[in-house]
Amino acid sequence: MSKEKPSIPKGTRDFGPAVVVKRNYIFGVIKRTFEKYGYLPLETPAMEQLSVLTGKYGDEGDQLIFKVLNSGDFLSKTSAADIAQGSKHMVRKVSEKALRYDLTVPFARFVVMNRNEISFPFKRYQIQPVWRADRPQRGRYREFYQCDADVVGTNSLLCEAEIVQMIDEVLSTLGLTDFSIKINHRGILAGIAEAIGEKGREGELCVAIDKLDKIGKEGVRKELMERGIATAAIEKLEPLYDLSGSNQNKLTELTNLLGQTTEGSRGLSDLQEVWKYLEQLQSKALTTENPSGQPRLQLDATLARGLSYYTGCIFEVKVNNANMGSISGGGRYDNLTGMFGLPGVSGVGFSFGVDRVYDVLEELHLFPDSSQVGTKVLLVQFDKESEQHALPLLQQLRDAGVASELYPEPAKLKKQMSYADQKRIPFVVLIGSEEIASGKLKLRNMQSGEQQDFSPDDLVAYLAR
Amino acid sequence: MSKEKPSIPKGTRDFGPAVVVKRNYIFGVIKRTFEKYGYLPLETPAMEQLSVLTGKYGDEGDQLIFKVLNSGDFLSKTSAADIAQGSKHMVRKVSEKALRYDLTVPFARFVVMNRNEISFPFKRYQIQPVWRADRPQRGRYREFYQCDADVVGTNSLLCEAEIVQMIDEVLSTLGLTDFSIKINHRGILAGIAEAIGEKGREGELCVAIDKLDKIGKEGVRKELMERGIATAAIEKLEPLYDLSGSNQNKLTELTNLLGQTTEGSRGLSDLQEVWKYLEQLQSKALTTENPSGQPRLQLDATLARGLSYYTGCIFEVKVNNANMGSISGGGRYDNLTGMFGLPGVSGVGFSFGVDRVYDVLEELHLFPDSSQVGTKVLLVQFDKESEQHALPLLQQLRDAGVASELYPEPAKLKKQMSYADQKRIPFVVLIGSEEIASGKLKLRNMQSGEQQDFSPDDLVAYLAR
Repeated sequence: MSKEKPSIPKGTRDFGPAVVVKRNYIFGVIKRTFEKYGYLPLETPAMEQLSVLTGKYGDEGDQLIFKVLNSGDFLSKTSAADIAQGSKHMVRKVSEKALRYDLTVPFARFVVMNRNEISFPFKRYQIQPVWRADRPQRGRYREFYQCDADVVGTNSLLCEAEIVQMIDEVLSTLGLTDFSIKINHRGILAGIAEAIGEKGREGELCVAIDKLDKIGKEGVRKELMERGIATAAIEKLEPLYDLSGSNQNKLTELTNLLGQTTEGSRGLSDLQEVWKYLEQLQSKALTTENPSGQPRLQLDATLARGLSYYTGCIFEVKVNNANMGSISGGGRYDNLTGMFGLPGVSGVGFSFGVDRVYDVLEELHLFPDSSQVGTKVLLVQFDKESEQHALPLLQQLRDAGVASELYPEPAKLKKQMSYADQKRIPFVVLIGSEEIASGKLKLRNMQSGEQQDFSPDDLVAYLAR
Repeated sequence: MSKEKPSIPKGTRDFGPAVVVKRNYIFGVIKRTFEKYGYLPLETPAMEQLSVLTGKYGDEGDQLIFKVLNSGDFLSKTSAADIAQGSKHMVRKVSEKALRYDLTVPFARFVVMNRNEISFPFKRYQIQPVWRADRPQRGRYREFYQCDADVVGTNSLLCEAEIVQMIDEVLSTLGLTDFSIKINHRGILAGIAEAIGEKGREGELCVAIDKLDKIGKEGVRKELMERGIATAAIEKLEPLYDLSGSNQNKLTELTNLLGQTTEGSRGLSDLQEVWKYLEQLQSKALTTENPSGQPRLQLDATLARGLSYYTGCIFEVKVNNANMGSISGGGRYDNLTGMFGLPGVSGVGFSFGVDRVYDVLEELHLFPDSSQVGTKVLLVQFDKESEQHALPLLQQLRDAGVASELYPEPAKLKKQMSYADQKRIPFVVLIGSEEIASGKLKLRNMQSGEQQDFSPDDLVAYLAR
């Protein structure tokens, strides 16, 4: 056996108990919300056929897929000629499987494979890790969880309204109070391009406008000109950067500008309908104001997000009082399963970036104490006699549902206390010769340092509260 | 984009909503029990350094590890000479990472990497998938979950007693009533070998005895003779196959046979101490009888399980009224982290085979109804008018914590009912013109077919019970 100093692959992480418990708290809030809205869990294998993944994420994406070497004699199907053609050619010869790159393609694959058993509309959520051979950096990992919810098989804009509701509910439940759910529509972007005389060039407009936060109005103007957008068009475009006032004001202004374009009016009418649904649902996203005085749901005509993929409404969520990019996003797509030969299945989906949500909750100190609890009480063991008295109590505590431990061997009190400290165990029971004689146990509150005497029964009742 | 008919790699599975919900029920029971005993969750990355895994599972195991191809130009470090040496040599040149093969080696790797931060005894559980390039067959998959709990850094036999308690509690909570927790000790096996005059050959004895269930006493005798075990030794051995009576009887008989051997008496004294702990914990595993009249915990001197790895107590669990191999097992090891250069860390652990537990619960119809619930009520949508009346109710239901859905578009009643059926939604609300006029809603119980009228508020209260 080797004795090397072990390490883990770069870009991957171990999650120790304290972190797992906090991550599970986030997953729990998200799952309960998804389920309340009728979404049910799906799990797909970590490995997919390489052919299922290839060609779905663009050339760059294909490079970032982790390929799994065929087992056994993987060179058996290769020749010197194959090898001479280099790695790109060889991949297909030595690898048939690959690690999941996202949850969307496996979902589409699942829908197509099970189309005859699935009852549409099909609402599923999926919380699983994905793997990307990206260069690791702060906040970017090679293994990370995605947290997706999608509904396919319906065009109803109620689904979009419910996505706003779910985002609002998850973030509110997590204790966030200052966030913006930005919404836009692919039709608005196409309508803008048409209205300013650059029909069909919304892709280029978006790439530039997407940088507004980073490079400012002048920077975007420069980039648009480099891309050959006419100066007159840019001038018509700029007022859209800071459409102000209420969402209804923005909708009115946009109607004046784009109402005559086919795509623009499709986008506007969809957004109006989403708003109507949210009003009927008495959505807090419409009525709750951020500290800035804005409602949580904000129409943003410059939101561009993933243009190549989406065809209808698009979403993006930002926490305003934390130093973090978007923590959630999504949109409607017309043809998710077309890649596997099943056209005409429209759907809409969104996802949470769990690593980012985690960092935001840490930054804002929003993890509740209850998300950190493991063992509630440690029984200290001084010697065999104290162990004998502790064992029946231990069982009584567990029977009452109290997570409890007896330190498994006699050890110095200091060592046992530091064990409790490190596991953040809030209570410790001391059973020394004095306690055995009196029949009263000492319960120590590890946070306050207070000690209190209890009979065994009262102690169990107190901790089981 | 390719239009091939998509598939998943052999030996892997998609888990649809109904199955995920049932699996999560099992995981939930296991997690809650682990946590009640002070075990906390750990998660490690799916990919480990290949060097961390290689050499830990024997030659056959090494073959079954899924290797991940280096990203980018993976051939760049190879030459024609490497290729000529074949796959076994090439693996190290083109792959540095591999998929987790079990949870034990990553746990040992974690302990060694974090030894300065960890407070010992360290109790962790880990529920994650592992991957093995085994030939798939019924009940054997290439991706499957393991469910481990281990405590390292203490020799206390309280840990063994608590493992018995956890197994008993998990299986009882899952509704199983006829199972056996078999326990033995590595020292007993070594003592037997010594006592029958074949000291040090317990490995060979065990391989043969392990087949007792399959090939019978005669078959084992034949195999032992082929292995060169003396006839006199075999004759001394055979009475052990069917040691009968109470566990204490068995301990007495074993003491007569092995009490003089060092290893045998170590094993016997450890087992006696485990029993003493269980008595002090008033363990139901000692007092609850199976339908056969045996207690759940049974000393089995022929239990051999994973001899090369374990050094103390060993466990194995079988459900007696189901057609299934062992569903749980484990044992004590002296030197888990020695493979990474950190000697002297003793520990004990066990795991549940979740796929097998799942099949057993299905076979015995033990999944509770509550483990199948997703959405509780579907609001049927006849037309825009019924939708308008449904939307505020939908929100009211969700605010009351009731998982609920409005069918997202008007559709034939039959289609909506079949949607509810397939999702096993237990209640459906009908809001037609009659209901709108009367202000009373019709609630249909999908199982009984009964219908009842409610005011909206009463309906919410009824479903939120």
